[in-house]
Amino acid sequence: MKRAVYSQRGPVPQDVIDAVEFTVPALAEGQALVEVLAAPINPSDVLTLTGRYGLLPPLPAVGGNEGIGRIVALRSSRPGLPMGRTVLLPVGCGSWSTHVVVDAARLMPLPDDADPRQLAMMTVNPPTALLMLREFVDLQPGDWVIQNAANSGVGAYLVQIAKLRGLRTVNIVRRDSALQAVRDAGGDVVLVDGDRLTERVADATGGAAIRLGIDAVGGAATDRLAGCLAERGVLVNYGAMSGEPCHASPAAFVFRDITLRGFWLSRWFRQADAQQRQAVFGEVAALIARGTLHAPVAATYPVERIREAVTAAAAGERNGKILVVPNA
Amino acid sequence: MKRAVYSQRGPVPQDVIDAVEFTVPALAEGQALVEVLAAPINPSDVLTLTGRYGLLPPLPAVGGNEGIGRIVALRSSRPGLPMGRTVLLPVGCGSWSTHVVVDAARLMPLPDDADPRQLAMMTVNPPTALLMLREFVDLQPGDWVIQNAANSGVGAYLVQIAKLRGLRTVNIVRRDSALQAVRDAGGDVVLVDGDRLTERVADATGGAAIRLGIDAVGGAATDRLAGCLAERGVLVNYGAMSGEPCHASPAAFVFRDITLRGFWLSRWFRQADAQQRQAVFGEVAALIARGTLHAPVAATYPVERIREAVTAAAAGERNGKILVVPNA
Repeated sequence: MKRAVYSQRGPVPQDVIDAVEFTVPALAEGQALVEVLAAPINPSDVLTLTGRYGLLPPLPAVGGNEGIGRIVALRSSRPGLPMGRTVLLPVGCGSWSTHVVVDAARLMPLPDDADPRQLAMMTVNPPTALLMLREFVDLQPGDWVIQNAANSGVGAYLVQIAKLRGLRTVNIVRRDSALQAVRDAGGDVVLVDGDRLTERVADATGGAAIRLGIDAVGGAATDRLAGCLAERGVLVNYGAMSGEPCHASPAAFVFRDITLRGFWLSRWFRQADAQQRQAVFGEVAALIARGTLHAPVAATYPVERIREAVTAAAAGERNGKILVVPNA
Repeated sequence: MKRAVYSQRGPVPQDVIDAVEFTVPALAEGQALVEVLAAPINPSDVLTLTGRYGLLPPLPAVGGNEGIGRIVALRSSRPGLPMGRTVLLPVGCGSWSTHVVVDAARLMPLPDDADPRQLAMMTVNPPTALLMLREFVDLQPGDWVIQNAANSGVGAYLVQIAKLRGLRTVNIVRRDSALQAVRDAGGDVVLVDGDRLTERVADATGGAAIRLGIDAVGGAATDRLAGCLAERGVLVNYGAMSGEPCHASPAAFVFRDITLRGFWLSRWFRQADAQQRQAVFGEVAALIARGTLHAPVAATYPVERIREAVTAAAAGERNGKILVVPNA
């Protein structure tokens, strides 16, 4: 059995982590041994390795925040959780691992017949997209939303959830080669970021009043999104893929009453009650199981090749998520 | 009679404006001729000359947005507005002028015995300070507020109004030579911006939770203020003295739920009703007349020297407001 362990944080994320052998201890009462089926590497995982995330686990730590697995040993008799059942791993359990020992009470059963690689991405990106569409602006069917990093995992889910809600999306990407994937995902308007974005968006939407903007890039890209919003619009930032702080010019914030907020899924989960959390996870799991929600996977790696996997996840210009698939 | 006229906008504000002779037309029924006593040059006036303000008058235009004067001719019999009465000029009337013709109905009578130079600054900066303290966060006596550009006109009023409300202020300035003036104005804590601002503010306030930040600088200074706010704090920007857009890092906005808003007095006035506007002006006028509110005046200029006056107002490192005093 192997897992990806890091004992320090540093600017080059793949340099601080490595796969190490470990032995599973005897299960205590109530525990389950889960064989991991798939676990993604999210931008927040990379930031956790570099020490730039908002919540850092004590060291040493096992990498991986989300994932799914199959119960292979059990000292619990919780109904609905038999041996062999596909389960969602609890957030933060160290999912870049061939096996994980967890309290059975923390496992959420999942459909056994859905694509495990798609289910493995359900905890972080889809709720982020769903909640950013819901928590800031009271959008109605027919309304427009604009986002950048539209070819990211969150970006793909946001396009799909918006469509389910009857919303229309303006999707901004940073390179021509990313346009087609977002069009294929169902983006109503897809544009490359740059000069005259406000005018190009107005042309493409017929001058629609866009009240919600979703920014994962930061830097001047934030301000360009702000420039596309209607007066009193809300701009929600959830990432800084450019590595720069958001730029917010008074032209938007003072003269047009734009508000800049941040969204952090970890905080939402802390503040939500169990029923609210369950409602979000239940909706997302059902949509993924039906194939309605999906995100592209760029490549998969076994735990042994965690350094290559992290290198790929930390690099830009991917066409999909990097997954750790330990027991392929 | 002279007034400061500009027929174009340009990057060097003093180059586009000049004093020109004019002849007052015969007064129409309901009009008053007002001899201007004093009219300030605000940062928004400089931005109007350079074309970077949110509201630009048609050209050619007379400079000057606010000011006070004395009625010297009258074709109106409105009670309370006799010849010789000190009056507040309506916003945007072109106050950098020896004389202004206005509808008497738009004049607000002012105390004749108060300092005209202080009253001349009442329309723009004091309501900005008062409303930013009131409209965003429900502050209670004893609460702390943090602002930068604390030696500006708005900064001085904000210190004084906060004190009247029982609030305590952390005041950030950009140079050592500005510290004493803000201490003299009653600032509870006064610090020079720069490294380790969060720690220095925490030391000076005993780790107080600061829920409102007021930013007029932009650039990295915005982010440093954000770093001093408590979780869920609100940062209100109303200017960009650095010439840069506000920087807002996810460390504050995503992980600590800071909100960035903009404040623009013009919008507040548009949205407020006559009673709300009158309440703000009435409170401010009374406080200035009593000497409770005041701001330093760095220099005064006649209309003939408008180019020097604008040059001085556009330069940094002043110790007070630049006033046009046409009839001294």
